[in-house]
Amino acid sequence: MSINEDNIKLIDGGICAVSGVETGGIKEGKYGVAIILSLDSNAQAVFTSNKVVAAPIIHTKKIIKDGKLSAIVANSGNANCFTGEQGIKDCEYIVDHTSKLLNVPKDQIASSSTGVIGRKMPMDIIEPLIDKVSEKLDHSAEASTDAASAIMTTDTHPKECAVEITIDGKPVRIGGICKGSGMIAPNMGTMLAYITTDAIIDSKFIKIALSNSVSKSFNMIVVDGDESTNDTALLMANGKSNVEVVDRDIINKDFQNALDYLCINLAKQMVRDGEGASKFLEVNIKGALSPSDAILASKSVASSMLFKSAIFGEDPNWGRIVSAVGYSGCEMNQDIISISIGNESTFKNPLTDKSVYLVKDGEILAFEETENLKVAEKFMASNDIVVDIDLNLSDGEATAWGCDLTYDYVKINGEYTT
Amino acid sequence: MSINEDNIKLIDGGICAVSGVETGGIKEGKYGVAIILSLDSNAQAVFTSNKVVAAPIIHTKKIIKDGKLSAIVANSGNANCFTGEQGIKDCEYIVDHTSKLLNVPKDQIASSSTGVIGRKMPMDIIEPLIDKVSEKLDHSAEASTDAASAIMTTDTHPKECAVEITIDGKPVRIGGICKGSGMIAPNMGTMLAYITTDAIIDSKFIKIALSNSVSKSFNMIVVDGDESTNDTALLMANGKSNVEVVDRDIINKDFQNALDYLCINLAKQMVRDGEGASKFLEVNIKGALSPSDAILASKSVASSMLFKSAIFGEDPNWGRIVSAVGYSGCEMNQDIISISIGNESTFKNPLTDKSVYLVKDGEILAFEETENLKVAEKFMASNDIVVDIDLNLSDGEATAWGCDLTYDYVKINGEYTT
Repeated sequence: MSINEDNIKLIDGGICAVSGVETGGIKEGKYGVAIILSLDSNAQAVFTSNKVVAAPIIHTKKIIKDGKLSAIVANSGNANCFTGEQGIKDCEYIVDHTSKLLNVPKDQIASSSTGVIGRKMPMDIIEPLIDKVSEKLDHSAEASTDAASAIMTTDTHPKECAVEITIDGKPVRIGGICKGSGMIAPNMGTMLAYITTDAIIDSKFIKIALSNSVSKSFNMIVVDGDESTNDTALLMANGKSNVEVVDRDIINKDFQNALDYLCINLAKQMVRDGEGASKFLEVNIKGALSPSDAILASKSVASSMLFKSAIFGEDPNWGRIVSAVGYSGCEMNQDIISISIGNESTFKNPLTDKSVYLVKDGEILAFEETENLKVAEKFMASNDIVVDIDLNLSDGEATAWGCDLTYDYVKINGEYTT
Repeated sequence: MSINEDNIKLIDGGICAVSGVETGGIKEGKYGVAIILSLDSNAQAVFTSNKVVAAPIIHTKKIIKDGKLSAIVANSGNANCFTGEQGIKDCEYIVDHTSKLLNVPKDQIASSSTGVIGRKMPMDIIEPLIDKVSEKLDHSAEASTDAASAIMTTDTHPKECAVEITIDGKPVRIGGICKGSGMIAPNMGTMLAYITTDAIIDSKFIKIALSNSVSKSFNMIVVDGDESTNDTALLMANGKSNVEVVDRDIINKDFQNALDYLCINLAKQMVRDGEGASKFLEVNIKGALSPSDAILASKSVASSMLFKSAIFGEDPNWGRIVSAVGYSGCEMNQDIISISIGNESTFKNPLTDKSVYLVKDGEILAFEETENLKVAEKFMASNDIVVDIDLNLSDGEATAWGCDLTYDYVKINGEYTT
């Protein structure tokens, strides 16, 4: 899974790098509110597949059906999930109230909540925050960071990214913010990602482009395998670049590629900030019988509590890697598998000294006391670990990202009601 | 999932409680060997579904096809997995050698290994252990405990159980030992369970009876969700009771019930001794659309790293329970679900004060500051936590068992190559 970065320029400004976007955010203690304004945008979203859904998910699913959006209002500190009728009413009140403050139709305002489940929304705290944020919306890079900070829960820092590409000689921008550090699972865990673009793209193709990117990014990160009730990835396109990115029903490749890049960048920021994480893990699979087999295998290794513990312990315990591939459900043959470990992918740069084979075409090169095992131990001591697995069966490939399992993960989730 | 215990008498002696069974075991440092002798037994086994399989699994699958077994030789300290041709040869040597020592045909000797993956078998250590153990086989309760101790890896104590039932006025016994504390997953993780009985039952029905019991016991416990390459549950029946337990192709209900009881007893011992575990968790589901839905939901809650962390933190965080049910894949409706927490199952004893409802028929009774939440906090402080979830849809039910996620789990698996 490699992204062509040739045509992509990383720029500052986060979600506000896109013209016509104004944001603001305030975080006070555990509660925060962010507002994102991008008037008259085409929009679509991808939501949690958890069967328990929060009130704002119900609201946003409904209003986004017609593909038009002008604003998002999001709060942290309370998920407004499993809050019954009162939760629905609270969500509607938040949207109505924001609608009046921003002078935007209420059916063009999406809403999200993140935080603890099964607690009544503290409206006496949230409403004044909405009032204050609505008064200070602007187009600056600081405003993007404020919004990214306002939606944080156990995140330790705000997460933003913006890119510019050139299509037909004209610049097109995509910007995003996101939050999420626990409950990160296959299929998106307590994750909010808001993305804006100035491209011209209608909501039908937004749905396709966003789903493509989400499947390669947010759905490929694992912190703990728990999936949240509130996950949302949302893309708003306001057309201000005057550049069409769909031609005869085909999404421009550079645009899709840039959206993939941005989503992967945000997803990797999330997993790097995984609850308690001290190390970052990339698992590349190639040679799988199919792409879906490659996804199974890569996620299984990135999710294995035993291998996550081994990363924390800086132990190149490749037995736990093959075991996780073995129970993943993907087709495999242990007699032809190759496994390497390093700080760089062997698949991309096979000739560097930044990785080492532990198993090559089924032959074990890392019995105890071997040189390869010692080299692998050195790589395990660094902060970024890359595991490459070639199943040598066919051409299915995938990449998943994860982090180590640490004392701090247990501490954060054992001692704190999130 | 309740077992009728009326006709079941717990007895001493472990696997040696069954007449005609002799065992022995020695553990020296990280390595150990156990031998179980039950001459001319009918036998069958259930194995790991991991696609990576260890050499002894390959051997035992082959020789058990004809349903006859006289002995088992098992070692701890090395899994003899991913050890190539040499691993197969080492396994064959162990079986041949044991065959000569015991004077038993080599195609009637099953073999198991548990321990680290991808390391050559230390035959210079294992062979002398086999020699010593073969000289001291006997029928005592101590011999059962020795065998149970010899197969331990990260287990903190040996695990044994024996029961007696009366069929047609005559006693029938079933005894077992097992090991396993990490890599315990849905579908059996680094688990070895050896069961003997003096019942008369042919190998075809052993397979059915054992599969029935495994599905309710070893397959319903979760420590970390990792599944091992070496799992084996094996039942040998030597017929010494002179009691037939299959009549016109139907397995005697009392026998099946007793085997269920024994397997659940052993499985619960495993999860109580889960790596780093400080608390024991039982998750009962009823009212599911189907039994398989109930299994999905119960395992999902028992596996949730967030809820496991909450148990460690003694936090009645029921939001994490509903969330885990929601992403389990089972059908559910959050508006009619009931959830209780306690030290005893509400399903069995609805009228005691040993449990409390957090959510009843969709209504939330445990907002912050409520009496129910305070009572739940008290229950969470004890060592045995029972969570009951009534999905109120149909009559599917299941029970899963698990443990908390603790600092010690991370320590054991981060600091030690297992």
